[in-house]
Amino acid sequence: MEPFNKLAIIGLGLIGSSIAHAARRGKLAKQIVGHDASADVLKRARAVGFADALEFDIGAAVADADLVILCVPVGAMKAAAAALAPHLAKGAILSDVGGVKGSVVSDIGPLVPKGVHFIPAHPIAGTEFSGPEAGFATLFDGRWSIITPPPGADAGAVARLKEFWQGLGSQVELMDPAHHDLVLAITSHLPHLIAYNIVGTAHDLEAVTEGEVIKYSAGGFRDFTRIAASDPTMWRDVFLNNRQAVLEVLGRFNEDLSILTRAVRNGDGKLLFDFFTRTRAIRKAIIEQGQDSAAPNFGRK
Amino acid sequence: MEPFNKLAIIGLGLIGSSIAHAARRGKLAKQIVGHDASADVLKRARAVGFADALEFDIGAAVADADLVILCVPVGAMKAAAAALAPHLAKGAILSDVGGVKGSVVSDIGPLVPKGVHFIPAHPIAGTEFSGPEAGFATLFDGRWSIITPPPGADAGAVARLKEFWQGLGSQVELMDPAHHDLVLAITSHLPHLIAYNIVGTAHDLEAVTEGEVIKYSAGGFRDFTRIAASDPTMWRDVFLNNRQAVLEVLGRFNEDLSILTRAVRNGDGKLLFDFFTRTRAIRKAIIEQGQDSAAPNFGRK
Repeated sequence: MEPFNKLAIIGLGLIGSSIAHAARRGKLAKQIVGHDASADVLKRARAVGFADALEFDIGAAVADADLVILCVPVGAMKAAAAALAPHLAKGAILSDVGGVKGSVVSDIGPLVPKGVHFIPAHPIAGTEFSGPEAGFATLFDGRWSIITPPPGADAGAVARLKEFWQGLGSQVELMDPAHHDLVLAITSHLPHLIAYNIVGTAHDLEAVTEGEVIKYSAGGFRDFTRIAASDPTMWRDVFLNNRQAVLEVLGRFNEDLSILTRAVRNGDGKLLFDFFTRTRAIRKAIIEQGQDSAAPNFGRK
Repeated sequence: MEPFNKLAIIGLGLIGSSIAHAARRGKLAKQIVGHDASADVLKRARAVGFADALEFDIGAAVADADLVILCVPVGAMKAAAAALAPHLAKGAILSDVGGVKGSVVSDIGPLVPKGVHFIPAHPIAGTEFSGPEAGFATLFDGRWSIITPPPGADAGAVARLKEFWQGLGSQVELMDPAHHDLVLAITSHLPHLIAYNIVGTAHDLEAVTEGEVIKYSAGGFRDFTRIAASDPTMWRDVFLNNRQAVLEVLGRFNEDLSILTRAVRNGDGKLLFDFFTRTRAIRKAIIEQGQDSAAPNFGRK
């Protein structure tokens, strides 16, 4: 692809820093400029060295940029967009990486100046680590990124952003923001809520010590602790901004759990066996489609 | 340690075959004999070659063995023990690897002949794969195994079994069967039930296709699919035999989930943030104690 002249990354955590690493690897921008509201994060980003320039002034960061990507928690999107909007160049693409798209569209949409192409996006990739040191160039390789173009979005700008995400290593799908929010509620938001919840339950049991939970975690519990170690601010904001879809899938989850609970109580072995059998096929498909490792225990060392 | 003369492994799935591999690695027995009720499994075990002899006759398998380990699903323990009991040598140790200990004690205990040392055990280790091809020598390395000696158990026999599990690579802890069942209910049984449940919920949503669930599973969902791919028979039997402890921790889990659900509904960001913050410490301790990988995403390739 034809590289962007200036890529401005607003927010230098795991995703922002990974975009910088991957954009440099793919030669997707002639200049990569980073901004963060935290002087400490900026200093640490400088030490890692993934950007050509770092700006504490958000206006300076986005000035003359032809691609600006907001990589802040969903709850911080509006303030960041308001601060940078007056400084956006005509013809620039303004995008984001927020895990909720409905709220981002309604928060940022009205702030976008005429002549700027606002095209939200969301890479379905991450790790349990946070901060500018956590990023790496291969984070998006083979994963999917979802672009949610608003009605009437400029087709050329959408194509440019799609090329950019493909250049970062990602596969790309276009989707409606509301559908995105429902899909992510089941594939990401509910799993995180459940993981946080079970870790909390284990933490609070009086009859089992925390030391015991830790020692015997290889029985299955440890799998949940990974995503329950994710960034609390990011996840608070996801749940505050995708309430309806999360409550919808939580309701379904609870209905299903009632059925399993009843089967345990009644000793209904046939129901349990049948339930536990049909779930294997999804794992198989996820591995076949390259979205997880086939090695036992995720290939952990 | 002084090797056993003859180790008989009853049931040649993931755990049974891993014990054989690890016992051979550690030279823990002069002879390793395997038995399985399935001729197909026996044939596949022969092809892998982890035993010195394979016996379809359970009596021949345990005759003269000084260590016999039942590696069948919890629900199959009683029948297997009844079949082999008359053939046990005086002074032999009879043990098992069942994930529930209360039911194993009450099912097997009364069947054990005088002069045989019945000492239940449970290695907290496994993968999502099943069958005689799934075993490997390092499965127990660094993991914990729990031994639950009955009241009045022979101290020498307990010490021998402890040495054996240490020889397999494991750390060993002694515990009361009832406490074991509660500890495992939170560290293993509830995580599996929740994982099976969420995969089922995703499977049944009409508004999100299975293809979408698979494509975007890297958002967190895929972490649950690993343990939801575990052996259905084994897990059915666990839930049928540890009903009380599972219902107890399920009740706690549901109480906690009600609080999180209410916080999502009310937009209580402070509660969510505080909840999501305290769960990080457990992950950190699990990694520090060598029970999980510190690499991002479990170090998946």
